[in-house]
Amino acid sequence: MGSAAASPPPSQKLTQEDLKRVAAHRAVDLVEPGMTLGLGTGSTAAHALDRLGDLLRSGALAGVAGVPTSLKTELHAARVGIPLLPLDAGTGAKICLSIDGADEVDPDLNLVKGRGGSLLREKMIEGAGDKFVVIVDESKLVPRLGCTGSVPVEVVPFGAAHTLGLIRKVFDGLPGFHARLRTVKKEAEEVPFVTDNGNYIVEMFFENGIRGDLRDISDCLLRITGVVEHGMFLGMATTVIVANKDGTVAVIEKNK
Amino acid sequence: MGSAAASPPPSQKLTQEDLKRVAAHRAVDLVEPGMTLGLGTGSTAAHALDRLGDLLRSGALAGVAGVPTSLKTELHAARVGIPLLPLDAGTGAKICLSIDGADEVDPDLNLVKGRGGSLLREKMIEGAGDKFVVIVDESKLVPRLGCTGSVPVEVVPFGAAHTLGLIRKVFDGLPGFHARLRTVKKEAEEVPFVTDNGNYIVEMFFENGIRGDLRDISDCLLRITGVVEHGMFLGMATTVIVANKDGTVAVIEKNK
Repeated sequence: MGSAAASPPPSQKLTQEDLKRVAAHRAVDLVEPGMTLGLGTGSTAAHALDRLGDLLRSGALAGVAGVPTSLKTELHAARVGIPLLPLDAGTGAKICLSIDGADEVDPDLNLVKGRGGSLLREKMIEGAGDKFVVIVDESKLVPRLGCTGSVPVEVVPFGAAHTLGLIRKVFDGLPGFHARLRTVKKEAEEVPFVTDNGNYIVEMFFENGIRGDLRDISDCLLRITGVVEHGMFLGMATTVIVANKDGTVAVIEKNK
Repeated sequence: MGSAAASPPPSQKLTQEDLKRVAAHRAVDLVEPGMTLGLGTGSTAAHALDRLGDLLRSGALAGVAGVPTSLKTELHAARVGIPLLPLDAGTGAKICLSIDGADEVDPDLNLVKGRGGSLLREKMIEGAGDKFVVIVDESKLVPRLGCTGSVPVEVVPFGAAHTLGLIRKVFDGLPGFHARLRTVKKEAEEVPFVTDNGNYIVEMFFENGIRGDLRDISDCLLRITGVVEHGMFLGMATTVIVANKDGTVAVIEKNK
């Protein structure tokens, strides 16, 4: 699993932004005329939107439409000329392919997503399609989820402090674990961050990543009244495109 | 399990409202001075609020405070003089006892709740306490959940039609099953019913009730991105107080 090809020439010094672009362009190569696409959110997905817009304007690609995973993506896609569809279009149009970045990718292609706060819509749309192509630079590859930062959990505002307490209980006694409500500065005050769906985000932090059965942990979280969704995307990615620092690209396919 | 006592005299013809009141008063007998209570929502729980208010005003009970499961209950409780606490009071006050009605009670004391639309807050508060006393008239006892009406599922508005499709898939091929978005009339239009948390409700209907492992079915529903919570309250009730048509009351305790 995994093939590598050089693009662009490895002699060149590439920034992280270059790497994101390289991965994004490779993903857009998979788009065929007439496809309905799930359009991701974030700095890497933004490169895919730009590329799609270029191809549509030049006439190299035609007949595609996108389902945006956030308001930000909706605005970006409209600006670059990608026709948009809502998820509930009722047209019978099925999402063929979604393209999005990720915060972390583990060896089984499980992901952490949603540090940007858009996890629910991303999970809904990317889970609705046949294929989900994840585009990352190599810094996102981790041995275990939760290694490099927080794992977000979207919670209902009502009783959020109570729900936070129940989330902590799931990992009771786990060394180095902590969780907190995500906040943002508003004027002089720290206020809860609010998602596109009007919910709050609990951030979970793990020392050296999450150990244990991820599906069991997922179920434990989802069973908490007040938890809406979490940022572990388990078994959803079908392809991961990794741009390496040396300019090579690895395409990792999910084991069937 | 289950003891019966006559109250009031069985000769009297009792209305359903009388029966609800009888069960509610019996539940309030369990309240002790100083307790923090979870206060349910609905026509049966309303009788418990009235009774608590009477006892507080007469001085027969003192020092109790309630955590309301809906805005409606909050207003009712304030009107009858029950001191209120939010769920996240941070006072360390633990809910000792919750009292609420139910739409259905099965032989294992599993419940359907939330046909009134307040399931999430009820589940959160009633799950937070040590004891949860359910008060019903005997018409609510069913052989299987889902026998007498809908089982509600609270869903995020974004992608609700898509989420409805995924809920239908859980019960794919089950004869007599159907599901729909709950709507209300607003002026001349049917619009989605909106919960206290700004979400929608999907109503699931089963021919002759739900067969199969309820916990498995619960997990399948909760794993759907877009599902926030459902109205099956499994293993939560610790006591069910049933007012029978003949005026007797049965108190059923959960098997330890």
